[in-house]
Amino acid sequence: MKIGFIGLGKMGSGIAANLLKAGHEVTVFNRTPGKDESLVKQGAQRAAQIADACRGEAVLTMLADDPAVESVVFGAGGIADSMGKGAIHVSLSTISVALSQKLTTAHAERTGQLFIAAAGADDAIDACLPLFEAFGQRTYRFGNHPPDANLVKLSGNFLITSVIESLAEAMALVGKAGLDQHHYLDFLTSSLFAIPIYKNYGAMIADKKFVPAGFSAPLGFKDNRLVLAAAENLRVPMPLATLIYNRFLTLLAQGGESLDWSAISLLAAEDAGLEKKAA
Amino acid sequence: MKIGFIGLGKMGSGIAANLLKAGHEVTVFNRTPGKDESLVKQGAQRAAQIADACRGEAVLTMLADDPAVESVVFGAGGIADSMGKGAIHVSLSTISVALSQKLTTAHAERTGQLFIAAAGADDAIDACLPLFEAFGQRTYRFGNHPPDANLVKLSGNFLITSVIESLAEAMALVGKAGLDQHHYLDFLTSSLFAIPIYKNYGAMIADKKFVPAGFSAPLGFKDNRLVLAAAENLRVPMPLATLIYNRFLTLLAQGGESLDWSAISLLAAEDAGLEKKAA
Amino acid sequence: MKIGFIGLGKMGSGIAANLLKAGHEVTVFNRTPGKDESLVKQGAQRAAQIADACRGEAVLTMLADDPAVESVVFGAGGIADSMGKGAIHVSLSTISVALSQKLTTAHAERTGQLFIAAAGADDAIDACLPLFEAFGQRTYRFGNHPPDANLVKLSGNFLITSVIESLAEAMALVGKAGLDQHHYLDFLTSSLFAIPIYKNYGAMIADKKFVPAGFSAPLGFKDNRLVLAAAENLRVPMPLATLIYNRFLTLLAQGGESLDWSAISLLAAEDAGLEKKAA
Amino acid sequence: MKIGFIGLGKMGSGIAANLLKAGHEVTVFNRTPGKDESLVKQGAQRAAQIADACRGEAVLTMLADDPAVESVVFGAGGIADSMGKGAIHVSLSTISVALSQKLTTAHAERTGQLFIAAAGADDAIDACLPLFEAFGQRTYRFGNHPPDANLVKLSGNFLITSVIESLAEAMALVGKAGLDQHHYLDFLTSSLFAIPIYKNYGAMIADKKFVPAGFSAPLGFKDNRLVLAAAENLRVPMPLATLIYNRFLTLLAQGGESLDWSAISLLAAEDAGLEKKAA
Repeated sequence: MKIGFIGLGKMGSGIAANLLKAGHEVTVFNRTPGKDESLVKQGAQRAAQIADACRGEAVLTMLADDPAVESVVFGAGGIADSMGKGAIHVSLSTISVALSQKLTTAHAERTGQLFIAAAGADDAIDACLPLFEAFGQRTYRFGNHPPDANLVKLSGNFLITSVIESLAEAMALVGKAGLDQHHYLDFLTSSLFAIPIYKNYGAMIADKKFVPAGFSAPLGFKDNRLVLAAAENLRVPMPLATLIYNRFLTLLAQGGESLDWSAISLLAAEDAGLEKKAA
Repeated sequence: MKIGFIGLGKMGSGIAANLLKAGHEVTVFNRTPGKDESLVKQGAQRAAQIADACRGEAVLTMLADDPAVESVVFGAGGIADSMGKGAIHVSLSTISVALSQKLTTAHAERTGQLFIAAAGADDAIDACLPLFEAFGQRTYRFGNHPPDANLVKLSGNFLITSVIESLAEAMALVGKAGLDQHHYLDFLTSSLFAIPIYKNYGAMIADKKFVPAGFSAPLGFKDNRLVLAAAENLRVPMPLATLIYNRFLTLLAQGGESLDWSAISLLAAEDAGLEKKAA
Repeated sequence: MKIGFIGLGKMGSGIAANLLKAGHEVTVFNRTPGKDESLVKQGAQRAAQIADACRGEAVLTMLADDPAVESVVFGAGGIADSMGKGAIHVSLSTISVALSQKLTTAHAERTGQLFIAAAGADDAIDACLPLFEAFGQRTYRFGNHPPDANLVKLSGNFLITSVIESLAEAMALVGKAGLDQHHYLDFLTSSLFAIPIYKNYGAMIADKKFVPAGFSAPLGFKDNRLVLAAAENLRVPMPLATLIYNRFLTLLAQGGESLDWSAISLLAAEDAGLEKKAA
Repeated sequence: MKIGFIGLGKMGSGIAANLLKAGHEVTVFNRTPGKDESLVKQGAQRAAQIADACRGEAVLTMLADDPAVESVVFGAGGIADSMGKGAIHVSLSTISVALSQKLTTAHAERTGQLFIAAAGADDAIDACLPLFEAFGQRTYRFGNHPPDANLVKLSGNFLITSVIESLAEAMALVGKAGLDQHHYLDFLTSSLFAIPIYKNYGAMIADKKFVPAGFSAPLGFKDNRLVLAAAENLRVPMPLATLIYNRFLTLLAQGGESLDWSAISLLAAEDAGLEKKAA
């Protein structure tokens, strides 16, 4: 397929490279210049402006957050202005951006091990399947309503924060009992909880290492508010999500803006008298 | 080693068989008769009473709950009355009983894949290592204070209930949005949450199938109260554990005594207007 | 003073009458016709349209909710279009509307027993003091920032919902213990909690009488979200307010739209197995 | 009536004086000597030991906490050993002890304005009515089960902690918005919340003055745990009570043992970034 690709961060570059490798004709664009060089060497076309990346059958974006998506899509000279009739815009989930830094092995994006949650018109998704297959291991379809894919993503982030909060409380408990938190974590993640989310976030909690932020507390808070807003619209009470809401609000009130979102775990430790306040 | 083994449920029988297979001399006892037949065929001695199982270097118990342990240990003619000087009592964690029914593959106990959290006097644990190696993949030592192993077990159960609560809220959310809960779960457990806890409890939540109980709500509540009591003694606030406490109390107030502990997930669905009350 | 008065419900009519009685020249307007008759007999001028009520030194509005305020102020031919330079708009707190139906004695508004929380430019408040004195017992000034008066109002509503939730839990407790809830309430409100809020909401909880709604659950929810939004902006975690947020969301998810906001108390009773679901 | 009175603190002395004034024959005892002098001058008999106060128709105790009650009742030479057949023991609620220091006007106990929650055998209460009338304004009967009076007391303390928590959150909100907390409190307690509980605890919160403790945090925590234990037995979830449980646990984990129980309000302020940690 002839496609455009906008957003050439670590994750975006990997996906675009996979698309090239799979034989697609890819025109790349990144706001910050220079990021396209390696891809151009691999055969990509360089777009001088967003519109140049919008002349194919589809344009994919891999952007860090909602403001970036808005600006690229709806800004002057953006995708909305530039895309041809019948072309498809695929907004790749930001969860991967955040998580790729922590949770995927270094080369996952190069070996097509991603899982893709897609929602949208059936024919649009059908048309994009060759693309998805180029960089994803499997595509899950969640109906015709594009926001549903976003709901899946947001609920996934909610589940991750739940892991963080539960580990934070358990680690405060065993830590105050005098047990070694790393040893405890090793036990957990060798037995029932043997997945990277528990391993990586558990290690960050045990090490109290929240800089540099893989996914910052303000971004985590934003996603928490978005899942709560979606839940409110649907009239779904989520008491654990509101507990985490209060954690984020406390962390930010105390100066934790620059920390990783898993720094909400500091609060359980502080409440137990184990730590100084975050800021 | 010459050892006794008391408690021949599904899990206990598997462990005892492993111990026999590893060459240990095992005398077995079970309150309900008949459960020892298969083991006797494999070479075990049959104990007519508890005391007969207490004549070796160690006695292992694999019992369902605290009252059973108390009765076997402190009852008339129990272990405390019968054990020789220097002999060691090893109380195997009940978590395995509960989880084995849901979370281990059918033959895990036969292939020595268990993880063991041990706490107690160094020489006692050293003495038991040959036993642990016979049925466990790895032994984690948590200091000299036996209750610490229990704290590890209780905190593990707390983490499992946190998984249940977080899945319950996420599934209520996507369910009320009209997405297919099984498909959603399949996505989650193929990607970031690819472990049996998420798969099995997620399936129970999506199927609303809470009978027969693998681990009953009253037992789950008991462990929740025990972890909160330990946390209170240590002055460790655990707000997520108290949220789950209220879930259990609600479930039991509404007649959920005979349901699996994961039935606390019904409450998130009911709060969202998706389900009838549990009872 | 020469003033306009818009919004002639029960509370607005009482205040306007007080203003007339105090000698002010009052032009009245109400969207639904006929409500101005009694006031016109008492000496008020009838405004044919909003603009006619905007020709004096100040215009006061006493409206049920935010949409009504928005429409009257910013709609075509509204206050914003019509007010003269230097004229003052006084938006009277809707809390009084809601509470007057439950919490004030029938004639409180006629005898000037209201308490007024005012925020705005000093000279604007100074100019309005003669008005406030005509219908309020005392005016509290909360700085120059008009939204601050609103924050006071919203936080007041939060305190009322806290009373409702705490009474709901206490009444569920003593009720399930077999004590008479009315007798218990009588004890409470004769001793430490001898104020109408505890008496009136306590009686509604004991009687389970939530129709007709004095202040409806959706309006209560709206104010809860507004106080949480204000708290979020200020980075102030309010866990009790989020607990009540979840209560409202549950009540509305279960069909409680037409009930009084104090019907969130049903949920504590239901959780305890005392009541059927709200809807 | 001929009665004994044990426990001559501020509250106990006032009640005993009222009983004397009403013409009862009172024998007084206090562990710390010297506290009986003023009462002896008013006509009381001095008991040299507990048994001497147990020779009448009833013995009343007014003691600070449960250990004191236990020791006086069940200790060697205590009430249980000494009381005659048919005599009645009246354990006066400790809530009054705690609250009298903060919430009653200085002479309330002398003018018989107390409210009494009584539970017990009908004829025992009937027999004691003349006593209750001597120092209480009104006696509320809560059935034949003495613990029910205790449940009323504990639920009352729960309501007070709910007031503290709700005020703490509201005051953190308006405080961080830049409003004057005392002025805000003055507004609240002049209007909808015009009772001493809001006034006194509100002032302590605004002043951050938690020493000396009128009712200490450990005692407040004890009562919180007792109400939760009663609720657990009755299967009544009380999420607001568990929120307060976590507040107490946090306060105590951070060194607040010597502070007044209303110091749990510090935590809302600290979470908002307004205060340093308690300890």
